[in-house]
Amino acid sequence: MQPHELTLTEASAAIAAGELSPVELTDSVIGQIERHEGQVHAFAELTLDSARGAAKEAESQISAGGPRNPLHGIPVGIKDLCDTEGVAATSSSRTRAGRIATSDSAVSARLRAAGAVLMGQTHTHEYAYGVMTPTTHNPWDLSRTPGGSSGGSGAALASRMVLGAIGTDTGGSIRIPSALNGTTGLKPTYGRVSRQGITSLCWALDHAGPMARTVGDVALLLQVLAGHDPRDPGSVDEPVPDYAAALGGDLAGVTLGVPTNYYFDHIEPDVEAAFRSAVGTIEASGATIREVELPLGHTYMPVEYGILVAEASAYHQDTLREKADLYEPDVRALLEVGELLYATDYIRALRVRELIKQGWRELYEAAGLTAVLAPTLGAVAVRTDDPMVRWPDGTEEPAIDAYVTTSAPGNLTGLPALSVPSGFDRQGLPIGMQIIGRPFDEAGVLHVGSVFEAATDFANRMPTGLA
Amino acid sequence: MQPHELTLTEASAAIAAGELSPVELTDSVIGQIERHEGQVHAFAELTLDSARGAAKEAESQISAGGPRNPLHGIPVGIKDLCDTEGVAATSSSRTRAGRIATSDSAVSARLRAAGAVLMGQTHTHEYAYGVMTPTTHNPWDLSRTPGGSSGGSGAALASRMVLGAIGTDTGGSIRIPSALNGTTGLKPTYGRVSRQGITSLCWALDHAGPMARTVGDVALLLQVLAGHDPRDPGSVDEPVPDYAAALGGDLAGVTLGVPTNYYFDHIEPDVEAAFRSAVGTIEASGATIREVELPLGHTYMPVEYGILVAEASAYHQDTLREKADLYEPDVRALLEVGELLYATDYIRALRVRELIKQGWRELYEAAGLTAVLAPTLGAVAVRTDDPMVRWPDGTEEPAIDAYVTTSAPGNLTGLPALSVPSGFDRQGLPIGMQIIGRPFDEAGVLHVGSVFEAATDFANRMPTGLA
Repeated sequence: MQPHELTLTEASAAIAAGELSPVELTDSVIGQIERHEGQVHAFAELTLDSARGAAKEAESQISAGGPRNPLHGIPVGIKDLCDTEGVAATSSSRTRAGRIATSDSAVSARLRAAGAVLMGQTHTHEYAYGVMTPTTHNPWDLSRTPGGSSGGSGAALASRMVLGAIGTDTGGSIRIPSALNGTTGLKPTYGRVSRQGITSLCWALDHAGPMARTVGDVALLLQVLAGHDPRDPGSVDEPVPDYAAALGGDLAGVTLGVPTNYYFDHIEPDVEAAFRSAVGTIEASGATIREVELPLGHTYMPVEYGILVAEASAYHQDTLREKADLYEPDVRALLEVGELLYATDYIRALRVRELIKQGWRELYEAAGLTAVLAPTLGAVAVRTDDPMVRWPDGTEEPAIDAYVTTSAPGNLTGLPALSVPSGFDRQGLPIGMQIIGRPFDEAGVLHVGSVFEAATDFANRMPTGLA
Repeated sequence: MQPHELTLTEASAAIAAGELSPVELTDSVIGQIERHEGQVHAFAELTLDSARGAAKEAESQISAGGPRNPLHGIPVGIKDLCDTEGVAATSSSRTRAGRIATSDSAVSARLRAAGAVLMGQTHTHEYAYGVMTPTTHNPWDLSRTPGGSSGGSGAALASRMVLGAIGTDTGGSIRIPSALNGTTGLKPTYGRVSRQGITSLCWALDHAGPMARTVGDVALLLQVLAGHDPRDPGSVDEPVPDYAAALGGDLAGVTLGVPTNYYFDHIEPDVEAAFRSAVGTIEASGATIREVELPLGHTYMPVEYGILVAEASAYHQDTLREKADLYEPDVRALLEVGELLYATDYIRALRVRELIKQGWRELYEAAGLTAVLAPTLGAVAVRTDDPMVRWPDGTEEPAIDAYVTTSAPGNLTGLPALSVPSGFDRQGLPIGMQIIGRPFDEAGVLHVGSVFEAATDFANRMPTGLA
């Protein structure tokens, strides 16, 4: 096994044991980038020279005193929506061509301070306003989307070009690419990870969080990323527990909800079969499964879009006046449509959102749930040249709507939602399951995810689309 | 002196000393209501029978064990925007004719629990959406407005029909009637007093707070009203200090800001003279006066209206569809206009509001201020049949805009703002000064107000308009 094939957890242990050097690991990852980035296009900007320098520095620090952190010497990618000092940060948009970030976002700074090796900026769907990331290809099938908006991070992880990455999630943008690339990603609780220095799409729904190959890897990243930051008005001052300590064991005494509604209105048969099988695996690990009815399901999409579209258009209004032609047509259209929304619609969406949050809170209380299990998406990765999902009932739907439908509850409620690999369809494309927990109980969802992961091998498969 | 002429503080002390009974006080207040309510129309609903019962109950409790609170046995009025169990609560609107509240708002419940005697519901401008309270007359000149929207509370206090009252303030609705009726009112910090059970006008700007004749009276009311309430999403869990302990003494070591801009763009000469004289009085009490420039003044009115109008229209949208004809024409017009506002405008207003808050925060820090002093309003009470303010430069302005202009900074910043009587114009109409303090430093503004009040006698004059 070559170093770039190791999970973050494995590489970290090997480094701590003196069996692997950060330079060796970084060189191995760079080799993988050199082999596959020409096909995958996961990166908006590579910073290989500074990565080599950081790896050398980590090597000498670790030789002198051991790793200061499990991320010390680990190659990671930063979504291009996040500023990294001295590095081009364009939000994958021509409106920001040539923009160099002058300081680190909170997530870049925390990874850097932990000793991680920053490999570059990963592609986002322009300004995170979409779920296709058209710049980038899915390593399982290069003709298909890696999802988005954190598509570069998902594709880079699946391609073994990084061992960890940052994503952001406003309507599924961490979980969608995690599901479509067969990787693992956590949208933490709203307020858990600082968004300082990250370009906003919709501050009421924006979350930043870790993406990696396994649940354990995500836990190590979250340990560094979580924590209060007064510079982000949404940040919450809650204690940060030991996430690695929550992993493993069994699920005795844990009650999990499985929805009877909403998530199965439209779903591909292979995806539903994988989900039902995953629930069986989890039940066999000792969990009590309880059927639950999600409240106010018919409101999720109008409320998600009512908030998102309005805030995005407000944020971009001046730039749209100056540089409309430099936006991609899909993003420009959404921004223009958003300017036609009435304030009363937006405000009513915010009010219904409060009812949704309250309904979910009561659901967890009434049923005694640690988490709700659900398919991350109802469908696998669509082809880039045909971005429609065709459902068994003969209807079809744009992929953006299909993918956001199952993601939006996590954004509207602000609850932590972990997507883990849960199978493959008959074409060999990855499928994900999400575990949606209680506020600030990332430890609880990571625990469930880690038990499921240990009972399966979906997280270990190599993507089939790379030459 | 008859009991109804006492201030709340005086009456409370007399009750505690056994020199005055709650029944005697309530009967005296009822006599005043019988004499003057036919002219003033301060009340939307009187509850004199239950008030007599509450007074008797208070009397026997106090005979048995002394007053449990300085408000025990004190007659008060509740703004009709606030629910009081079993009492008509119509927000002074025909759209709510016949509505009986089924439970107490937080403010009614707190006053009731303290032993106060609830005399009835005081008139508001319909749904608090205006500053004229057209149902009600100013006791200093019955042809003039008592201001609003808490006009009934202001007029009832000036008429000695209650010794304390509840107001709400979204764009000045506590401070405007306080200034125009020669009474004292405090808009507390946003989050200080629960709004549970109060009909919303604009939750981002709505505040509830105490109104009374003197600063000491306001402090006694605030002591009971202040405190965290999780049922109000805006409520903040901050400790409640002893407000009475903050009163009196001098202002040595206290630095106060006087704006050089914004408040003097339009002001009546008598009002400006009263303000300058008040600043001189305060300086003579030991305070250091510092000239300050308020940040972003040109944005206050568009931001205030951009937020208020949008939220009010969202709140009323369904009722407006069903009962448009039952709204008064002025309120209906504002509600209809608000439906035309774009979401981007509302959101941008919210964003500029954050800059305003930040600018004021920095101003207090940089200048080391305890509070900013400003005229409560630039003009005295206008005539009901001619609701325009005519400025010395020959321009004229609707009273609503004139009055909200000087009030809005307190709502936008959320800072505590106390209006105290500060003089009379050449027609004998009352003038107010506001003291705008730091977040949750109600004690600081009450201190400044109490020292000023002790040096003057403006709070003791009897209104000149009653027969």
